[in-house]
Amino acid sequence: MKDIAVWGFAWVPPFAQGLVRDLRVRWALEEAGLPYESKWIAADERTSEAYRSKHPFGVVPVIESDGETMIESGAIIHAIAEQHEVLMPPDRRNETLAWMFAALNTVEPPLWNLFVMDQLQSDQAWTELRRPGAVDEVRARLAALSAWLEDRDYLLGRFTAADILMATVLRFLRHTNLVAEFLPLDNYLKRCEARPAFRAALRNQEAGYLRNAPVAA
Amino acid sequence: MKDIAVWGFAWVPPFAQGLVRDLRVRWALEEAGLPYESKWIAADERTSEAYRSKHPFGVVPVIESDGETMIESGAIIHAIAEQHEVLMPPDRRNETLAWMFAALNTVEPPLWNLFVMDQLQSDQAWTELRRPGAVDEVRARLAALSAWLEDRDYLLGRFTAADILMATVLRFLRHTNLVAEFLPLDNYLKRCEARPAFRAALRNQEAGYLRNAPVAA
Repeated sequence: MKDIAVWGFAWVPPFAQGLVRDLRVRWALEEAGLPYESKWIAADERTSEAYRSKHPFGVVPVIESDGETMIESGAIIHAIAEQHEVLMPPDRRNETLAWMFAALNTVEPPLWNLFVMDQLQSDQAWTELRRPGAVDEVRARLAALSAWLEDRDYLLGRFTAADILMATVLRFLRHTNLVAEFLPLDNYLKRCEARPAFRAALRNQEAGYLRNAPVAA
Repeated sequence: MKDIAVWGFAWVPPFAQGLVRDLRVRWALEEAGLPYESKWIAADERTSEAYRSKHPFGVVPVIESDGETMIESGAIIHAIAEQHEVLMPPDRRNETLAWMFAALNTVEPPLWNLFVMDQLQSDQAWTELRRPGAVDEVRARLAALSAWLEDRDYLLGRFTAADILMATVLRFLRHTNLVAEFLPLDNYLKRCEARPAFRAALRNQEAGYLRNAPVAA
């Protein structure tokens, strides 16, 4: 892959900074040592014809490389991982992909629900009634994941692309103490976030928000 | 792949029959022409030690083949698709995977939320207040997807593994008229469900439920 560009949102409010999904792609590129350019789509332009021609659902990330466009953080990271052993050992491809899907299709849904409920919907009358059940659903997934990580540093023992997805999913709970309730999980997330590639990715995303921040009224 | 076994739930109530995710794996195997055996896990055994050793989250599907165990419908179907062009043209692997992740990580979450809300939580006080917003979120995804399918028979033009995931995701709305609001989408789902491999998969899943149905009190 060369001439890589990663699309993210130009700016998001502080509660969402560090959680938008282009961070996943940046992290994978940093782990693989691939240089990339950042491109930014303003929130009010995401449903424009021009951007929809890149992404049918008007969301991020999108990656452009060698004239090809690709959507979906999971798929983009898999495409990078196929070419970089640091993200996926060739003899453990099925396992890596299984845990990538587990992160996005089994663990993310209840965690994302709680994130949206607490950060975007807390002024709505139903959230107070709904929240206890939603937290139970989160805890059920976290307990199973924590048991799996009890004797493993990373999901497959060693670091892979699946950890990029799982760690960024767990970060949706950073406004709560839920991850800290499970010691192996808490250690796992800290281990992932301590990786130099993660911190570089976060800095690159933050730099965009700083440059594109709305001027104070 | 040989000596394939697919794990599904032994029985589920009628509202969930035809929607449990082992259907996806059965469908992929039928498209690929691969024979398989069905194994059933009773709902109250899914969190047992024995089953957790197969699936850390205690859900289905699990596939066993050649002594290997694999979890997550998306990953299992990708592993089958890599070996069968009917599910994934070798020169369009990235595109297929992008649409597989789009089905499970972008389209499924709001549809699954509405399904669970209507089918399992409708006795709870918050659902009446929450439902209009949840339906709006569903319609936003369906509208974008329908626009994409306006001039395509399948997500990539021709049938691929991504259609197995997208069609089974859309089926979570079968208790509503939401898909029928979008003609291209409605036609797409009917086209997918008319495939002989889909119908064979559905029959195999149903056969298990019939055999394992609880005895009427």
